[in-house]
Amino acid sequence: MTDLMRIRMFQMDAIVGDFESNLDKLSEAVDVARADGIAILVAPELALTGYPPEDLLLRPALLAKLEDAERIFCNMSHGITLCVGSPSAVPEDGQQSKDPSTRPASIYNSLLVFHDCQLVCSYHKRSLPNYQVFDERRYFSAGEDSIVYEINGLRVGLLVCEDVWIPDIVEETCHQNVDLILVVNASPFAEGKVWERQRHLCDSSKINKVPIAYVNLVGGQDELIFDGGSFLTNHLGEVIAQAGFFSETILDFSWDGQEFVGGLFEPVPSKDALLYQALVTGVRSYFTKTGFKKAILGLSGGIDSALTLAIAADALGADNVHAVMMPYLYTADISIVDAKRQAEVLGCDFSIVTIEPMVREFMRSLNPFFEGYPLDTTEENLQSRCRGVLLMALSNKTNALVLTTGNKSELAVGYATLYGDMAGGFAVLKDVWKTRVYDLARYANLKDEVIPERVIMRPPSAELSPNQEDSDSLPPYNRLDAILSLYIESDFAPDDIIDAGYDEDEVKRMCRLVDINEYKRRQAPVGPRITIRGFGRDRRYPIANRWSF
Amino acid sequence: MTDLMRIRMFQMDAIVGDFESNLDKLSEAVDVARADGIAILVAPELALTGYPPEDLLLRPALLAKLEDAERIFCNMSHGITLCVGSPSAVPEDGQQSKDPSTRPASIYNSLLVFHDCQLVCSYHKRSLPNYQVFDERRYFSAGEDSIVYEINGLRVGLLVCEDVWIPDIVEETCHQNVDLILVVNASPFAEGKVWERQRHLCDSSKINKVPIAYVNLVGGQDELIFDGGSFLTNHLGEVIAQAGFFSETILDFSWDGQEFVGGLFEPVPSKDALLYQALVTGVRSYFTKTGFKKAILGLSGGIDSALTLAIAADALGADNVHAVMMPYLYTADISIVDAKRQAEVLGCDFSIVTIEPMVREFMRSLNPFFEGYPLDTTEENLQSRCRGVLLMALSNKTNALVLTTGNKSELAVGYATLYGDMAGGFAVLKDVWKTRVYDLARYANLKDEVIPERVIMRPPSAELSPNQEDSDSLPPYNRLDAILSLYIESDFAPDDIIDAGYDEDEVKRMCRLVDINEYKRRQAPVGPRITIRGFGRDRRYPIANRWSF
Repeated sequence: MTDLMRIRMFQMDAIVGDFESNLDKLSEAVDVARADGIAILVAPELALTGYPPEDLLLRPALLAKLEDAERIFCNMSHGITLCVGSPSAVPEDGQQSKDPSTRPASIYNSLLVFHDCQLVCSYHKRSLPNYQVFDERRYFSAGEDSIVYEINGLRVGLLVCEDVWIPDIVEETCHQNVDLILVVNASPFAEGKVWERQRHLCDSSKINKVPIAYVNLVGGQDELIFDGGSFLTNHLGEVIAQAGFFSETILDFSWDGQEFVGGLFEPVPSKDALLYQALVTGVRSYFTKTGFKKAILGLSGGIDSALTLAIAADALGADNVHAVMMPYLYTADISIVDAKRQAEVLGCDFSIVTIEPMVREFMRSLNPFFEGYPLDTTEENLQSRCRGVLLMALSNKTNALVLTTGNKSELAVGYATLYGDMAGGFAVLKDVWKTRVYDLARYANLKDEVIPERVIMRPPSAELSPNQEDSDSLPPYNRLDAILSLYIESDFAPDDIIDAGYDEDEVKRMCRLVDINEYKRRQAPVGPRITIRGFGRDRRYPIANRWSF
Repeated sequence: MTDLMRIRMFQMDAIVGDFESNLDKLSEAVDVARADGIAILVAPELALTGYPPEDLLLRPALLAKLEDAERIFCNMSHGITLCVGSPSAVPEDGQQSKDPSTRPASIYNSLLVFHDCQLVCSYHKRSLPNYQVFDERRYFSAGEDSIVYEINGLRVGLLVCEDVWIPDIVEETCHQNVDLILVVNASPFAEGKVWERQRHLCDSSKINKVPIAYVNLVGGQDELIFDGGSFLTNHLGEVIAQAGFFSETILDFSWDGQEFVGGLFEPVPSKDALLYQALVTGVRSYFTKTGFKKAILGLSGGIDSALTLAIAADALGADNVHAVMMPYLYTADISIVDAKRQAEVLGCDFSIVTIEPMVREFMRSLNPFFEGYPLDTTEENLQSRCRGVLLMALSNKTNALVLTTGNKSELAVGYATLYGDMAGGFAVLKDVWKTRVYDLARYANLKDEVIPERVIMRPPSAELSPNQEDSDSLPPYNRLDAILSLYIESDFAPDDIIDAGYDEDEVKRMCRLVDINEYKRRQAPVGPRITIRGFGRDRRYPIANRWSF
């Protein structure tokens, strides 16, 4: 029997393109690990570059810098084994080209193992996801071989992310007499994903009678949120160590020559807690990684902006959030009262700026052109756009990033104004169905009433025309969300949705609205993706198309 | 020796998702072909669905309708051979699933051959492009076999688009003793592409000693413009038939049992003519395919909006274009004079609406917040956004789609205002460098002076502050465009660009501007892609990233 060997998973928050910062962080983790007597330290998929680097990977200069970064990382490995996810480039015929735009023959998405300042092992990801938000075949060549790394008699089968979801690949690796499968991941959060992942990995452990160490990236990157939640299973398919979610952390376990012993076991938060934390992480990371500190948003007295404000205050600190109420003729008094109250409770900056004079001047200039035309949504959009211009001016002047407040249900059916309430840098609730907005508002209020109860209880309204309510033009949100989710996330045809028990007219009208509003979504700001199909890289629809169901 | 066999390439403009219209068009073409004694009629890649159908291909309902469409098309083939590009689905284990979201095991990008109401041959595209604007591996499985279709002793090797660019695939097909390679394409236009295509196909014909019939799609689809330009080479590598560009047309040739004889030979237009026509086609198709008839745009007296107006008038008819001059304090008198004159010359609707009262009211409300801050671009953006709001209001009320007028150089360095001059549905010059804008303006004026000469000659200015000129903040456009093109289109590092002879400070400053303005481009409207790397699906950069060269 060997000595106890200690293995550490570093659930890291890597920054895309920032080799210096990623290396600094890794270097610190290595120093601590060495001091802690760790034998193997593991960092997630593409930890050196961040995930996903997207088209930065097409830049030869980035690949050159990557080579330097790998060398620096390699030199950290004296007396310790370091496993890190990283792109690895194979130059064309081993030749260096003089043309600055020449690219290598192949780039792999690799798991590199360094020991005593040597690269001792490279595994190349075999299954490259090219669906949903993933474009890996745009950048990477697929590896073809199973790789086992052996250290002091411990045989570790190496995998990268998607590989562990392909039974044949796992099985092939396990057949090489491995004691442990080590899989590094950049697996983005989606509702339900945490449990799906655990179920799958536990099954896989049990079937193959092999423990699996799953180390995941953490933190937000544009629309993606990596939830962390790294864990270890045993060969019976039980989770025996569990890291926390949405924070950079480590998870240790040891090998006594026969079995693995886990350490930490963080509880998995509730469904609502996970989602709320995902959104907070998305906001915080976007600000940190783009260099913004302060946020500004329009606070309307409605539930969407109220929830957005609560999340922003949690993510950035209430001091850094400026809420602006921009009333017009159709704004109810209670909207102003409730908005003000919430800002006070949270301790955010709060301002009131009426849009009345601007709307009036626009209408005065537009009236000659509008003669003979009936009132329509033009006048509503105008109000919304005056608000957008105000917020953007405050944003430009005070260097505060505008958060938009619309939810997924609205964006799906186009119940939003381009350059109006859609104007901003980050759309916090972009992928959150309205019914989930209610859940989250209640969750946010569990400890203290950070969202005034009346905001949650009153009937939703855009307040863009007299006595307007959302229900004038849309079905109740529980029905709407069910229809939209089947249409958008499950690719059901309207007929299938009707067969599932929904009203024919309603279904057809809503699906049609989804189809004709693609142009709005194409110009929407990015926002955290938290379902299996968000409106970002996830869903690529032509604008000009005449598909009709 | 057989009778003369006549073959027709149908250079078709297919509409994405519109099976009815595509089938109607094909049906008419088949009837005419039959009457003309044509033996083989060929329609382009994915002619049944349009190209690219993008995520519509993930909808089972679309695949079901596609099956119907293939059946209908098949039934048109009595007494004639019909070759058509189409997705073809292979169901999982041949079973029908009850779950409406179940997808087939494989979808191929195929070339289907029908004869006498039978599917007689299917070729599945082997090389699936997954770079630039292409995402084919997101949707399609790759075929593995060469296929030869034989009719009356004529052996036709079948290929789809990208296949013909892969020497091994062409060679393998040619080794099967073929008389002709038939390749169906959806090859988007980019400057220089027409000649690159011909050079490559001629070389390929010569090397393999086989004639190639190249049939291309035509018309715009969102950001893509298919230029048509179908052609036929002989086995010596000479073009012996050439269809026109940017219009739906046919190109016939015949086989006498020994060689092919071409018919039509349209001249290839000049570089500027091709580009101008590409943009006109992009605009016209976008309007037709989204159902818009009228356009509106802000006409500033500058060259970008002047060129945009000329293109729009050519694409849609001057009657359908409304030009709006929106002056402010910094607008030169000659700007108003020249804008008015151009609109008169072209015969477009022209209006003048000052933004002075709106800017004044915004500033009155914003002043309390701006105290202590210096003047900066906030005030400039405000002017631009008031113009955006005006145009959008006119657009919403009159159902005219807003054309934006910014060029690629501006969008690259962020010299544009989000929700201001960037507000609109279609960005005509989005991928046109400023230096090319000048070329095109001169080209547009070749016959008549549709753009006032003074608009072309005066120094470019955004007119957002007193006596402002573009050259105050940017290098001259010939230098700027050269730097930007190397950085954006060729992935040169700034150091490589400096080595190529450009000023260090200028290069670093401009490349940095490109990097930090990704957030603007992400919210820009679509516009025709005419270079090898546009700012749409072509270039996928993270917003949050700290890559620095």
